[in-house]
Amino acid sequence: MPVGTLGTVKAMTPSELEGLGFSLILANTYHLHLRPGEQIVSQGGGIHHFAGWNGAVLTDSGGFQVFSLARLRAISEEGVEFQSHIDGSLHRFTPESVMDMQRAIGADIVMAFDECVPYPCDEAYAREAMERTSRWAVRCLTRHQSFGGQSEGGWPQALFGIVQGATYKNLRRESAMRLAELDLPGYAIGGLAVGEPRDKRCECVEWCTEILPEAKPRYLMGVGTPADILDAVERGVDLFDCVLPTRNARNGQIFTTAGPINIRNARYATDFTPLDPQCSCEVCRRHTRAYVRHLFMAREILAYRLATYHNLAFYAAFMKRIRNAISEDTLEALRDYAECASYGDP
Amino acid sequence: MPVGTLGTVKAMTPSELEGLGFSLILANTYHLHLRPGEQIVSQGGGIHHFAGWNGAVLTDSGGFQVFSLARLRAISEEGVEFQSHIDGSLHRFTPESVMDMQRAIGADIVMAFDECVPYPCDEAYAREAMERTSRWAVRCLTRHQSFGGQSEGGWPQALFGIVQGATYKNLRRESAMRLAELDLPGYAIGGLAVGEPRDKRCECVEWCTEILPEAKPRYLMGVGTPADILDAVERGVDLFDCVLPTRNARNGQIFTTAGPINIRNARYATDFTPLDPQCSCEVCRRHTRAYVRHLFMAREILAYRLATYHNLAFYAAFMKRIRNAISEDTLEALRDYAECASYGDP
Repeated sequence: MPVGTLGTVKAMTPSELEGLGFSLILANTYHLHLRPGEQIVSQGGGIHHFAGWNGAVLTDSGGFQVFSLARLRAISEEGVEFQSHIDGSLHRFTPESVMDMQRAIGADIVMAFDECVPYPCDEAYAREAMERTSRWAVRCLTRHQSFGGQSEGGWPQALFGIVQGATYKNLRRESAMRLAELDLPGYAIGGLAVGEPRDKRCECVEWCTEILPEAKPRYLMGVGTPADILDAVERGVDLFDCVLPTRNARNGQIFTTAGPINIRNARYATDFTPLDPQCSCEVCRRHTRAYVRHLFMAREILAYRLATYHNLAFYAAFMKRIRNAISEDTLEALRDYAECASYGDP
Repeated sequence: MPVGTLGTVKAMTPSELEGLGFSLILANTYHLHLRPGEQIVSQGGGIHHFAGWNGAVLTDSGGFQVFSLARLRAISEEGVEFQSHIDGSLHRFTPESVMDMQRAIGADIVMAFDECVPYPCDEAYAREAMERTSRWAVRCLTRHQSFGGQSEGGWPQALFGIVQGATYKNLRRESAMRLAELDLPGYAIGGLAVGEPRDKRCECVEWCTEILPEAKPRYLMGVGTPADILDAVERGVDLFDCVLPTRNARNGQIFTTAGPINIRNARYATDFTPLDPQCSCEVCRRHTRAYVRHLFMAREILAYRLATYHNLAFYAAFMKRIRNAISEDTLEALRDYAECASYGDP
């Protein structure tokens, strides 16, 4: 999933995303609640119609943003009070209110409201947050069922639960088991990609996927580099979202088959080759590194457009390789490619 | 001509411009000299190849920018010394150096180096600047001929002269006559759209087009609203460039058949109609005012993209109407449309 926090994958049009083969994007309840407000999205016919997007949408519940972006005021069993990162205004999210907001926004997949803990986190607090997240998931499901699992516009919404438990095996397993009991249509693994070592993340993912039902989609939130994605796919994860291809693009970091490059570097001023000579995307067919660097140095909007488009094309091609490799049972053969695309040629 | 100062029409890709039917864009010698430098453009195969643009390019000589944007240090018969608006670095432009730069950049149409005066301007100084501009035009032509009228890449470049003379009839006429004697392939009217009243501009244009040969393209620089363009077309002008559709778009001003609107206005928060209900561009077919307003309020890059695309589509459609009306001799019938599109319904 490309990340479209505010109902736009930054610098891209919906038709460009469709052209790259993306069929599902992520939007964010916290951000859409603050701007433009879920009622305006609902009045506009729901997020698909509001954003002119013909594919499917998943909304994150805003749990991660409340705990990472906003100024937290109080956490209680009932919910969370926080101040907006935009204007300091006071807001209160509960499992019920977050479900109502997601019902108004109208995504196809909605996420349970969860409590995210930082890394590292002591076990006592990690347990408290995990247990609260489990109880909140039950409240989310109850609210979701109270309106027939449907958006305000009347179409079905699938509720996914989110496994928490920091980096503790017993907590991750307990969280996954409690969620699995709810028989939800899909499950996410949350609270990772927050600074933990790669090995630790692989372990955590494995503890979860051992328990989460294989027949349901399993979604690792906020991951990652091509190598990180491959790590998780090998452990049974199906679905990802990450700002890496889009956010890094806006900072000038371009993914290439030979490793990421920063296009602002002076060495590219007279490099008249494509961003990635191995790539066949529209940007690589038409433009050079020297031109894209010039656009970045002059802070031209086209810089962010071309870099974002290419990085998303690169990720789309990588995910396609993964799907093909799964079909052909050759996932291992992708390892060198993924490591090199993530960290460069060793 | 959409304005592509730095080798990019801000927020647009070359293929989008092609799709809208534009076949000529304007780039700027002053800006390209400062960033990335004309030698990099030349190494990249010239401006067309460097920017991935399949159409034609006109470069302005930078005269206007030197006199409006840079910090002027000295004007002499030889040329102009100024400090860059970016880093204060010292530069010197002469008619010869500007022709050399434009030869390296490699546009299809290049402009003579001119001295632009502000409005209002006393007659003595206006005469001095006009006479210098006339002498500089001769030096530009001599330099241009010295390399066979060809770019560094070896393709032909057409040199246009620029009429100056502020708002004085005798000066405008003298300037136009002195340029016409050079038998250039095209002529521009410069030094207008700098704050003079509309009636005065119309007068000045007419003084020039009465003299400039009808069989050569006549280009009014930096104009304007649809009404301004129609004013000049009625007086025999063929070619225009203006930042209005693109710059105003980035400030949220949207051209519509019923007059310009500022999409940031709160009244559009729940307006789920297209930017211009009369427009059939891709943005108007897919997106609503409410969505574009949301993007502007959140400062999303897509805001600038959608607004720019629509405004250029609006201008492209207007220019097509003008061409059709000229063919059918019904130019007068466009007056109400142009006034309304420029200033709203009275």
